[in-house]
Amino acid sequence: MTATLPEPIRLAVDCMGGDHGPSVTLPACRAFLEKHPGAELLLVGQPEALTAAAAWPRCRIVAASEVVTMDDPVEVALRRKRNSSMRVAIQQLKADRDGNAPLAHACVSAGNTGALMAVARYLLKTLDGIDRPAIATVMPNQRGRFTTVLDLGANVDCTAEHLLQFALMGSALVAAVEGNEEPSVGLLNIGEEAIKGSETIKQAGEMLRAAGAAGQLNFFGNVEGNDIFKGTTDIVVCDGFVGNVMLKTSEGLATMIGAFIKEEFGRNVFTKLAAVLALPVLKAFKHRVDHRRFNGAALLGLRGLVFKSHGSADAFAFEMALARAYDAARNRLLDRVHDRIVATLQAKVGDAGDNATTVAQAA
Amino acid sequence: MTATLPEPIRLAVDCMGGDHGPSVTLPACRAFLEKHPGAELLLVGQPEALTAAAAWPRCRIVAASEVVTMDDPVEVALRRKRNSSMRVAIQQLKADRDGNAPLAHACVSAGNTGALMAVARYLLKTLDGIDRPAIATVMPNQRGRFTTVLDLGANVDCTAEHLLQFALMGSALVAAVEGNEEPSVGLLNIGEEAIKGSETIKQAGEMLRAAGAAGQLNFFGNVEGNDIFKGTTDIVVCDGFVGNVMLKTSEGLATMIGAFIKEEFGRNVFTKLAAVLALPVLKAFKHRVDHRRFNGAALLGLRGLVFKSHGSADAFAFEMALARAYDAARNRLLDRVHDRIVATLQAKVGDAGDNATTVAQAA
Repeated sequence: MTATLPEPIRLAVDCMGGDHGPSVTLPACRAFLEKHPGAELLLVGQPEALTAAAAWPRCRIVAASEVVTMDDPVEVALRRKRNSSMRVAIQQLKADRDGNAPLAHACVSAGNTGALMAVARYLLKTLDGIDRPAIATVMPNQRGRFTTVLDLGANVDCTAEHLLQFALMGSALVAAVEGNEEPSVGLLNIGEEAIKGSETIKQAGEMLRAAGAAGQLNFFGNVEGNDIFKGTTDIVVCDGFVGNVMLKTSEGLATMIGAFIKEEFGRNVFTKLAAVLALPVLKAFKHRVDHRRFNGAALLGLRGLVFKSHGSADAFAFEMALARAYDAARNRLLDRVHDRIVATLQAKVGDAGDNATTVAQAA
Repeated sequence: MTATLPEPIRLAVDCMGGDHGPSVTLPACRAFLEKHPGAELLLVGQPEALTAAAAWPRCRIVAASEVVTMDDPVEVALRRKRNSSMRVAIQQLKADRDGNAPLAHACVSAGNTGALMAVARYLLKTLDGIDRPAIATVMPNQRGRFTTVLDLGANVDCTAEHLLQFALMGSALVAAVEGNEEPSVGLLNIGEEAIKGSETIKQAGEMLRAAGAAGQLNFFGNVEGNDIFKGTTDIVVCDGFVGNVMLKTSEGLATMIGAFIKEEFGRNVFTKLAAVLALPVLKAFKHRVDHRRFNGAALLGLRGLVFKSHGSADAFAFEMALARAYDAARNRLLDRVHDRIVATLQAKVGDAGDNATTVAQAA
């Protein structure tokens, strides 16, 4: 296996998804194409909404008559809107009935998370050895790097086994996208000083320690909420409820702090003058905490690479999600997740000798 | 019942607790006393460490020979160090064997959370109708006010009934300390767009809605992580695992942002000059997000008022915790929690007619 896929890398883009649809996705696609000469795009959506892109190079419009809205229940996306741009975009990741290779290497959508996960799971199925797909994203840390966190909301109740799978998938993601082959994994827990974590967390800790000892991943140990931004570990694993609350709390706090800074600098003529003089500094600061740069969460554990953009993403943010999907596809994220899972399952069989069926399926 | 307790209000202070002990707690006590002429303090600890305070007015030193360290396991605090400053301080909240009134109205400690909760629970017991005490703190919000959040780590696995109890206790706290008699309550959940919350959360939502309909509290509905800093509701209720992660994540993010601002302003001579010019603005901003101002978490649901200071608190922060405990005691927080719980239990009996024993105990 070569380290990277040969170009062109082809992405299927759900151009109708998100709060803004083509008015954001098309400019983002254009900017992305300019910066990625080895990329091709399948622009999926209602053709009349995508005419602007009709003549773009390295692009093809793929017609889809319906749109999954941000409020559509999962059932509607799954059963009623069978010709949605979201669904057709994901469909591009599947081999056809004659066994021809899929048309796209990865898919990007800003559509609603629940629907995207459900449709992707239905169409693509999970990888062998994975019970539940997970959503992973990166957050900036104080070391000037990124912390990858998963799960962010796909799974509200997780077993220890699920958390182990998240750790393996997260390790594959960081290895693929950041070129860090032995990323460290932390298990999100509450402080040692407090009454310790739940039974599930304790059990997950034991499983992760065993996987670490067996060389399947690089387990650091328990981490706390503040470690995400300290950058104590490359990866932080948690259940989807906790991860979602953590992510939204961070967004809320960052927004509040931004508003406070604006308010204080806007208070009177002197503070406004100070703002002008401090402008380059404030811009540099804003850039560092600009969450748009980190847009593009990976849906891991599926038989296809699906990336989820924030629904409210602007063109810059959506372009970042496209770039992230491109990097993941080019660095064979799918194969890497598969390989990690297979290696772990095989090691389990080596230990226990009673799991041969699962491995045979997975290998 | 009068609205406030008559002065003097007496606080028992664990002077040995926290990372710094008397070098922080004593200056904090001094500053607190100067600003609260109606307060008296029982300074609990090793007398030789507290000699500086021997002649202070409105103070009395209460000897305790042992100290619970920040690393001491709960068992050590509970069973071995029976003459610890933490334990003796909490003991001041109990009536003596002859039924004389307790010596103090509230107790403040910066000692380790697990130990403090365990010792407080053992000595004081929970209020009737409360299964589990909870830890509540306030966080600043974008509306320039505070959001009270509980639980922050006392309970890692919570039932829907526990979450309802937290909502009642939180309502009593906000009513007492902020004079807001009908504070709104939000249930922390993950986004509507994602796959919805756990079974426990859904059930808690139903119980809170019912309590709201019965006039026992002011239930707003589900909220998400970002609503804490938006100030969507006065109170946010969650289990202790989620609350602890949320709190520590917020601390971590705030620290990172502070470090980024410092770094950007310190980059070169021009940015340093900008910092000097922007100094009043930066100071105003720093003040607004200064977590020391919000120090002092309430342990709710016990038969006594215990407040927990951050272990790393400096004198200013510890003084804030003392002030918070003072306000709570003066505004009869203990009676208010008790009354809310009794009212809810009585309403339940009215509904079901099968819960008379519990109410008889509680009333």
